[in-house]
Amino acid sequence: MLIDGLQYARWSEKIFRQMREGAVDAVHVTVAYHEGFRDTVLNFEKWNRWFEQYPDLIVKGRWAEDIDIARETGRTAVFFGFQNPGPIEDDIGLVEIAHTLGARFMQLTYNNQSLLATGCYEENDAGITRMGRQVIREMNRVGLVVDMSHSADRSTMEAADISERPIAITHANPREWAPALRNKKRDVIRAVTENGGMMGFSLYPHHLKDKSDCTLESFCEMIARTAEEFGVERLGIGSDLCQDQPDRVVDWMRTGRWTKEADYGEGTAENPGFPKMPEWFGDNRDFGNIAVGLRKVGMSADEVDAILGGNWYRFFADGFRPAQT
Amino acid sequence: MLIDGLQYARWSEKIFRQMREGAVDAVHVTVAYHEGFRDTVLNFEKWNRWFEQYPDLIVKGRWAEDIDIARETGRTAVFFGFQNPGPIEDDIGLVEIAHTLGARFMQLTYNNQSLLATGCYEENDAGITRMGRQVIREMNRVGLVVDMSHSADRSTMEAADISERPIAITHANPREWAPALRNKKRDVIRAVTENGGMMGFSLYPHHLKDKSDCTLESFCEMIARTAEEFGVERLGIGSDLCQDQPDRVVDWMRTGRWTKEADYGEGTAENPGFPKMPEWFGDNRDFGNIAVGLRKVGMSADEVDAILGGNWYRFFADGFRPAQT
Repeated sequence: MLIDGLQYARWSEKIFRQMREGAVDAVHVTVAYHEGFRDTVLNFEKWNRWFEQYPDLIVKGRWAEDIDIARETGRTAVFFGFQNPGPIEDDIGLVEIAHTLGARFMQLTYNNQSLLATGCYEENDAGITRMGRQVIREMNRVGLVVDMSHSADRSTMEAADISERPIAITHANPREWAPALRNKKRDVIRAVTENGGMMGFSLYPHHLKDKSDCTLESFCEMIARTAEEFGVERLGIGSDLCQDQPDRVVDWMRTGRWTKEADYGEGTAENPGFPKMPEWFGDNRDFGNIAVGLRKVGMSADEVDAILGGNWYRFFADGFRPAQT
Repeated sequence: MLIDGLQYARWSEKIFRQMREGAVDAVHVTVAYHEGFRDTVLNFEKWNRWFEQYPDLIVKGRWAEDIDIARETGRTAVFFGFQNPGPIEDDIGLVEIAHTLGARFMQLTYNNQSLLATGCYEENDAGITRMGRQVIREMNRVGLVVDMSHSADRSTMEAADISERPIAITHANPREWAPALRNKKRDVIRAVTENGGMMGFSLYPHHLKDKSDCTLESFCEMIARTAEEFGVERLGIGSDLCQDQPDRVVDWMRTGRWTKEADYGEGTAENPGFPKMPEWFGDNRDFGNIAVGLRKVGMSADEVDAILGGNWYRFFADGFRPAQT
């Protein structure tokens, strides 16, 4: 079982075939950064066309059972998520609409302050807002998972506490290992995982120790240490693979429509583009390297299976269903 | 010269005629609470039809000079404003578009957290956000006035500091006089007025001492005391008159689309509707009562003229123009 907790590739038949070569059973894909509701629907439409065009490679993922169907038929189940609450605009009724259309994860913020919570790039974090509390409750009700990957610390800990169902950090690493603002402090990881939540480890170079030069061993050691501290069953991969995207896309991810100035985010004026991936993880065919690396740092085959897919499968099975009433 | 710094009436020929009877030369009207951009444009369209239907009563206000034209021709100049940054959505480019369409005031928040700042009903106030700083600069550039009437204290003080042009609290009263969350602490009034900003006194009963039973004398004494402390030239009226609105409108103002629950705002479950106006201020024909009341508490004729219109005129003349480059 192989499940990736986040990708934002420039999707193509080539990448769908690479997912099959790499035996990726399911992937959570980003369908919105700064889009409002209507533009998000256009992105759902794009995926509908891909499902129609490549029925032998991909299938729409709605429930964990769709991963079983994908495995039986040799395809990859594609689950949708938003990196920002922009798609629900200021309208709590759009939470259920989004879930009906297939959304399964929604970040409460993307770097900046949102109507719901504070992003990790803001100077001050006032926690979950009045609307945020209402929206978390509604997300819990319909089965849309709270994702705090790009949120600030206090907001993340409050979300873990307010949410009546486990939440996720789909793609980030421990800040102690690599000091990016996007990476998470120990307290934050604890708050999320002790309530049954999941953390997916990111392979985006700005989140790695030594960035593009990060070694497989260092990455796998970090996973092993995190598993010792927070429990192997709470961990997965969220590669944050942005394969084949042109650099104008990272500019859009960072600046959206909120500023007229350049904002380099985790990059710099000298290196504004997408960073080069580490040698041992270039695309969907390289998850095997991570499996080997995890065994080398002492993890058992069962533990490796859990981290590479089993944990996400269980989390998807619990998290995407409407709440029991 | 008589200028009202805020009204949100259920507009009709009757009210336009009452403005003429009351000799109201200009009024700042709310064209958006929770509307996004497209719905705000529909509200501009409504006003365009009213200007077409009642050319002898009202005229669109774009610059202070339009008030002179209105006075010469016996009409009321109507200036547009937003009570919430919803109309610009997440798009800084809409600031200039809104100004081109006629918007002259925009509140950075309406009670709740926005993308720009914190509202007065939130528990925690983290101040002006990353996008907020960018948007204030853009509002300064195009001549869209920052209005913090419904904002929280820290956000308001930061906005007064960050803005390179004077800002406004178009409709509120001192919190010491009436302890509503919407009313403003002394420090907040000082931060706004010492930078050249304006405060308009509200006649909405939830902002008055003793609410609907507030006496004219108490209201006028409060104005005189505020003038002594912060300067008569920084003060005006922002009546917040919601004439003829049905109670479903105050429900919309409070809950928009952000919650599925009832939110009574400044009201209560027992009194959820619009409060009854004080006897001495029922509609646009009653500004004369305030003029008389201000004289009775010892203000000079010049001071009364300044508060009832002269100060807003000067502020409009400075504030609505694009910045000098």
